[in-house]
Amino acid sequence: MSRFWSPFVSALQPYVPGEQPKIANLIKLNTNENPYGPSPRVLEAIRQEIGDGLRLYPDPESTRLREAFAQYFGHLTAAQVFVGNGSDEVLGLAFLALLKHERPLLFPDVTYSFYPVYCQLFGIDYRTIPLDENFALRIADYALPNGGIVFPNPNAPTGRALPLADIEALLQANLDSVVIVDEAYVDFGAETAVPLVHRYSNLLVVQTFSKSRSLAGLRVGFAVGHPDLIEALNRVKNSFNSYPLDRLAQAGAVAALEDRDWFEQTRQAIIASRIKLTRELEALGFEVLPSSANFVFARHPRQAAEKSALALRQRGILVRHFKAPRIDEFLRISIGTDEQCATLVAALKDILA
Amino acid sequence: MSRFWSPFVSALQPYVPGEQPKIANLIKLNTNENPYGPSPRVLEAIRQEIGDGLRLYPDPESTRLREAFAQYFGHLTAAQVFVGNGSDEVLGLAFLALLKHERPLLFPDVTYSFYPVYCQLFGIDYRTIPLDENFALRIADYALPNGGIVFPNPNAPTGRALPLADIEALLQANLDSVVIVDEAYVDFGAETAVPLVHRYSNLLVVQTFSKSRSLAGLRVGFAVGHPDLIEALNRVKNSFNSYPLDRLAQAGAVAALEDRDWFEQTRQAIIASRIKLTRELEALGFEVLPSSANFVFARHPRQAAEKSALALRQRGILVRHFKAPRIDEFLRISIGTDEQCATLVAALKDILA
Repeated sequence: MSRFWSPFVSALQPYVPGEQPKIANLIKLNTNENPYGPSPRVLEAIRQEIGDGLRLYPDPESTRLREAFAQYFGHLTAAQVFVGNGSDEVLGLAFLALLKHERPLLFPDVTYSFYPVYCQLFGIDYRTIPLDENFALRIADYALPNGGIVFPNPNAPTGRALPLADIEALLQANLDSVVIVDEAYVDFGAETAVPLVHRYSNLLVVQTFSKSRSLAGLRVGFAVGHPDLIEALNRVKNSFNSYPLDRLAQAGAVAALEDRDWFEQTRQAIIASRIKLTRELEALGFEVLPSSANFVFARHPRQAAEKSALALRQRGILVRHFKAPRIDEFLRISIGTDEQCATLVAALKDILA
Repeated sequence: MSRFWSPFVSALQPYVPGEQPKIANLIKLNTNENPYGPSPRVLEAIRQEIGDGLRLYPDPESTRLREAFAQYFGHLTAAQVFVGNGSDEVLGLAFLALLKHERPLLFPDVTYSFYPVYCQLFGIDYRTIPLDENFALRIADYALPNGGIVFPNPNAPTGRALPLADIEALLQANLDSVVIVDEAYVDFGAETAVPLVHRYSNLLVVQTFSKSRSLAGLRVGFAVGHPDLIEALNRVKNSFNSYPLDRLAQAGAVAALEDRDWFEQTRQAIIASRIKLTRELEALGFEVLPSSANFVFARHPRQAAEKSALALRQRGILVRHFKAPRIDEFLRISIGTDEQCATLVAALKDILA
């Protein structure tokens, strides 16, 4: 630390993203990337955007992209849509714009580890609500005075999804505070809460193009909600960075929305691989939480997760292990191609032998 | 406003960027973009990066880009370099990480209008120091207790540059607070303070690729300073958004640094056009502040600036007019190609006739 730092900086404990190794030929199942590349139409749209036009600022409002996103759902207007530099930026802005109140923000004890980091950064009071013994979120546990509620659906890193009826009950019970549903993984088997934004002005749904759209390398995230909530996000965004999405990202993201077939085929392939991998892990003795995401969360009764992660790494396979309370016996394994999953299963068989 | 907003949001007055019209064939001299496109090597480097790799997260540390930037200067290491999603994001993070202290931040009364917006957003106390009657920054006026100092060099929207000796004197006089020099326009005629980072651990220099590198559409900004200052920026950045630069932006920016000839030719062309345009505006009776930037700041004794801006707009030429104290009689005119400048001068001649 240094005397030049703003005083709160020395207390910050930043988020630690999964490793992005610069070594080739690794099987990378540690950061929930899509094993399939983006749609060829996305690549072509980006190619078309490369030229002298890069000298000009992008549209600060990402109007065409917000309109394309609204049209994709059919029932939305662009005024209900906000876009940002990945859903991490969208979440960060939403925490600051909508969740900084006198009463504490509520979120699960086992969840996306960025949430407490945003709270630290922006001075937001929060309280964690334990998942139940099966790592499920029980909405009854959230019947507490609060200044907001946020959770991923499906939850991360557990993969467990919450039925839409539960989300609606939570919205009903919290009409005076904002509920943010972080749907980073929703396309892999959960039900989106987006249609509920018409009935609940306290709902903000956040999505990303990093997972089901195979565009982690392009940094595009969204929020959907009542125009009043979107206006708060815009006010904060325009007080921080007017142009968060570059021209290439805007063009690529629009094209991603247009290629529904690619999206459907790749997400169905991942769902099928997840079902297969789950069965194979169970055959090796793993307990696998029911996943609606593009990863599984699994523990083995006889082998420490940290040891398994290390042994896999030595075999060129990266998975994620969290040294955190309640979950340090689990591995979080991103769903790869069937071939990558088979290599993983063979390696685990070898390690457990 | 809405009861769901975090309380401070309703008081925010966001930054208003210059207009990004969707109309074709306008002569756009309102947002200081470069009239020349980026280097062909940049376009080729981006093309090479388009592919399946976009499914993977970018390097969160932008290591290759930070190394390229360090090498460009010759005397830096990557540990002295920070990159962000445009220099607006870099500045925003720097305000929060380094300028939030008990004593007020100081900056000029006439300057980049984003500075007070960051202060509002992050609750930073500030005090503005008037430029002198010639719109010059006098460093003697900054001999006040402060929690930091920030100014652009050349200043915006005046275009006036401060000699390096003045900046060094300011650093000497403020060894206990951070001085941020915002060099968005430095390549058009001012002297960079980057070499001073070796001697002054309180100096942070911010640059952008939006102006002299013709990459406003790609969103790349930098900060250079002592590794302790860079660490503060990283802590805040990693508490907000781990991956601010996408893969295409990182690749394009590296290539921009490699094509020194393109950079040199285009910036010299702009400097030459500025000299010519200044002479022509003066011939029309304008007072033009001495500019070291890619724009001029000019007022006419007989014609209101707002009226001129409107009349130019009707002729398809956009310039920037600020409805702000002390400067509402000025037009800020970005330097276009010689042809665009000639069209502007002819239009002004017509308007003033």
